[in-house]
Amino acid sequence: MTQRAADVLTEIDAVVGYTTYIDLIRPLVSDKQILSTGMTKEVQRVESAINLVLGGQSCAIVSSGDPGIYAMAGLVFETCNAKNIRVAPLQQFDENIQRQSDIIYIEIIPGIPALSAGAALLGAPLTHDFAVISLSDLLTPWEMIEKRLEAAARADFVIVLYNPKSKKRTWQLEKAQQIILNYRNKHTPVGIVTRAMRAGQHVDIISLENLNTAEVNMQTTVFIGSSASCHYLDFMFTPRGYSRKYAIKAG
Amino acid sequence: MTQRAADVLTEIDAVVGYTTYIDLIRPLVSDKQILSTGMTKEVQRVESAINLVLGGQSCAIVSSGDPGIYAMAGLVFETCNAKNIRVAPLQQFDENIQRQSDIIYIEIIPGIPALSAGAALLGAPLTHDFAVISLSDLLTPWEMIEKRLEAAARADFVIVLYNPKSKKRTWQLEKAQQIILNYRNKHTPVGIVTRAMRAGQHVDIISLENLNTAEVNMQTTVFIGSSASCHYLDFMFTPRGYSRKYAIKAG
Repeated sequence: MTQRAADVLTEIDAVVGYTTYIDLIRPLVSDKQILSTGMTKEVQRVESAINLVLGGQSCAIVSSGDPGIYAMAGLVFETCNAKNIRVAPLQQFDENIQRQSDIIYIEIIPGIPALSAGAALLGAPLTHDFAVISLSDLLTPWEMIEKRLEAAARADFVIVLYNPKSKKRTWQLEKAQQIILNYRNKHTPVGIVTRAMRAGQHVDIISLENLNTAEVNMQTTVFIGSSASCHYLDFMFTPRGYSRKYAIKAG
Repeated sequence: MTQRAADVLTEIDAVVGYTTYIDLIRPLVSDKQILSTGMTKEVQRVESAINLVLGGQSCAIVSSGDPGIYAMAGLVFETCNAKNIRVAPLQQFDENIQRQSDIIYIEIIPGIPALSAGAALLGAPLTHDFAVISLSDLLTPWEMIEKRLEAAARADFVIVLYNPKSKKRTWQLEKAQQIILNYRNKHTPVGIVTRAMRAGQHVDIISLENLNTAEVNMQTTVFIGSSASCHYLDFMFTPRGYSRKYAIKAG
């Protein structure tokens, strides 16, 4: 957790979040009002937070990783927009002006996203252009996901896959593999990182041809190399091209 | 800085980095050997660090943001690979086994990348699929960059541009704008973030048609919305589609 996130948690009145994430910070928020709910209750969580704030309380919504990448920050704005609730950056809040109860002041505190934590454990797969795609077709039509996979594969992006598989979504990862194999060598290195920097962390580097048999779940991030990405000993990295340009000499 | 980065800085013998970044942490490293060099000396920096470590010292290479995204981590592996130097994850280091002086043990410590910091200041532009592209053609042929811009625009990714402009590279951003305008509405929101969360921070949300006149430099990250991205009051966000699926009610 960043210092800013820790500071805010000590100041606010209420904390809203997915039960698993609340549990990770429970010692820090023992004196707060806590609203924790299970997965798929994202909309209710955000509506609860909005109601608390409109009622005069301050409230933090907690996510793991970065709240701005496939996480709750977007839903806050999506909900306020749909309900026509006025929002403003927290830095515009002025204590000397009487608080307007119909404005919600918002601060998004960035964190280390799974793509950064996972990349660090693999080596350096993201030091050149990359595309980030969620394989969850719960809120996005599969045709759109397929179109993005194809475009990213064709243009030789490193591809980061979020939400590769769940108990109910079992075929999407293999389909993604097939699409990418149309454009990329079967020996392309693929990094598999599950629960990066948390208990139960698992890191593996495999070949694209074996991606369909990799052990992945909703806590896994998958890194598919570009044509330039290398598997070197226990690491995976994508060169930026210095060695081509500057002729780094062999030792 | 994360706690892990601060801990490592207190433990190591030497620090290598771009002068600007070393200056930001100078109070923390006053008792260390410091090798700081200017921009474009990346290869020398990494070679200095490697030589220090092969000589028996421990060494940290510092970056701003996340060292794994368009930063130094990739060059470490690229250089070791080119020089045929053995590397291993730091967690494999065993103090009880006599240190093999020809192996370099490496830990990459992730940070908050500019794409996360910038997104947080804009609202939530990255809560759906996105592509990250550097406009620097110093190490990458411009034809490849153009191909990626076109693919990302066509497949309706949110597009994050790193290195949009420098004193010497002045035409690339306008060219990128033209390519993206072939596929995306001229009113598409574009977030411009310079020096996110550092002194001199500047945040703006404009329309794609005005991107060519935006004030940007090497410290700017540009966020080009997808067709779904919205500009709502002082924020920019990309909905994940909850309001379509769950019919979030107007207030």
